[in-house]
Amino acid sequence: MGTPDKVFPHATGEALKTVNKHSQPQDLVFYSGWFCPYVQRTWIALEEKGIAYEYKEVDPYRKEKHFLDINPKGLVPAVEYHGKPLYESLILCEFLEDAFPSTPRLLPADPFARAHSRLWMDHISKAIASAFIRLLQAQDPDKQTAALQEYYKALRILADQVKAPYFGGEDWGLVDTAVAPWIARDFVVEKHRGFKRENVGRNWEEYAKRVESRESVLRTMSDRERVEQNIRRYLRDEAQSEAAKAVRAGRPVP
Amino acid sequence: MGTPDKVFPHATGEALKTVNKHSQPQDLVFYSGWFCPYVQRTWIALEEKGIAYEYKEVDPYRKEKHFLDINPKGLVPAVEYHGKPLYESLILCEFLEDAFPSTPRLLPADPFARAHSRLWMDHISKAIASAFIRLLQAQDPDKQTAALQEYYKALRILADQVKAPYFGGEDWGLVDTAVAPWIARDFVVEKHRGFKRENVGRNWEEYAKRVESRESVLRTMSDRERVEQNIRRYLRDEAQSEAAKAVRAGRPVP
Ligand SMILES: N[C@@H](CCC(=O)N[C@@H](CS)C(=O)NCC(=O)O)C(=O)O
Ligand SMILES: N[C@@H](CCC(=O)N[C@@H](CS)C(=O)NCC(=O)O)C(=O)O
Repeated sequence: MGTPDKVFPHATGEALKTVNKHSQPQDLVFYSGWFCPYVQRTWIALEEKGIAYEYKEVDPYRKEKHFLDINPKGLVPAVEYHGKPLYESLILCEFLEDAFPSTPRLLPADPFARAHSRLWMDHISKAIASAFIRLLQAQDPDKQTAALQEYYKALRILADQVKAPYFGGEDWGLVDTAVAPWIARDFVVEKHRGFKRENVGRNWEEYAKRVESRESVLRTMSDRERVEQNIRRYLRDEAQSEAAKAVRAGRPVP
Repeated sequence: MGTPDKVFPHATGEALKTVNKHSQPQDLVFYSGWFCPYVQRTWIALEEKGIAYEYKEVDPYRKEKHFLDINPKGLVPAVEYHGKPLYESLILCEFLEDAFPSTPRLLPADPFARAHSRLWMDHISKAIASAFIRLLQAQDPDKQTAALQEYYKALRILADQVKAPYFGGEDWGLVDTAVAPWIARDFVVEKHRGFKRENVGRNWEEYAKRVESRESVLRTMSDRERVEQNIRRYLRDEAQSEAAKAVRAGRPVP
């Protein structure tokens, strides 16, 4: 089934500066893979909320025992909080909301508005993130065209809900956090799959620009060349990650 | 692509009694398909919390305009709360927690414990519910065996976490709510696919018995013959629901 994917061993650029600021032991240990869009969600939430955390780089493809004890699924992101493990990017974001109530709120207080945010976070995970990976892995031109249309469609449904400047209006929130890593990586599908933000719609182009230039997003992004290099094995459909194998086998992305 | 699935038009048995108690207009309108396990999650939460709701039966396969205005995905369950729509079974459960704080709590108050519950709710949706539908749709004996093993595996991972009597210990919670509809329907895979609760583990057998005899689960179940009849088109791999088509096409269940 091929050898495990090789990844560059550490963050670069802006993300590396952030990593270096978070090397001290803390109650909250953040297990990260610098390249991972799911990781970046949790990382953005940590930065937006100004929570003290210790950054630890993990290569999730190596499935080392210590890491499997924390997340039996062997996926980043994961967190140890006072020694107890948690994982799943959006569950971690919600945990940070619940556990650090005096930091900036990323979910609205109103129950209906909270549920509405969660609906769109769900759409991003189920429709947008999985369409992105199918678009990367599509090799044959017909399949690429179909995957690109599907990606546009998933984005347009979200674009229709954006209030501007951010998803919920004035304040940055968990929906923005959930989608930001895919916006920050769309230059790869622009270059290799003909994606154009303006084809989603003009409001998407503006929204995407605001999202990718948000401080917390910039501070958690490595150099573009490294990010693209990491995605290349998907573009050749050679990636051996759980997600890549799931898409190839027609299974839900883990 | 075949004609839409035909479903018996209304609940029967215990569930019908519950339906009849909820025919009066209320601030919260619950759009249900009596047969649907996702619906049953939200229905159990409504009953556990004693929330006033108006029950409305919808045939989601007919995709009527009124219903698509509420949930553009055309899936039950959905809710209208003071005229505003929401959907997705687990998001609805969390909404009920947030919007009715003085009713019995189904999520623990402690942030870590809440996140832990959410992890297992996620496992149930991603692993258990989707393995169940693949097991139903598997036709060829080899595929049935593989699907059964996969179903056992997904259940065992959860079984290991059950504290007893309920998932989190003494009190019924959202994890129990999330898995209950699949436990209440496992008699179908027992009859047609050789499933045995005891093969998951003895603690699962005991847990499953407690879950299926919980008042709120009983009150939201229709007659077993009707439930089985409804599942039959899955057993013959003839179902045309979004979920059935997704599994057939190797796509994530919506
Ligand atoms: N649903 C997970 C997905 C996390 C995920 O897929 N992480 C990838 C890196 S981007 C990983 O750890 N892959 C290791 C592997 O596939 O073996 C989440 O939201 O946290
Ligand atoms: N993820 C959804 C799934 C709901 C769902 O699949 N409902 C089915 C009935 S069990 C439905 O409405 N199907 C209509 C269709 O497939 O066209 C949830 O958790 O609420």
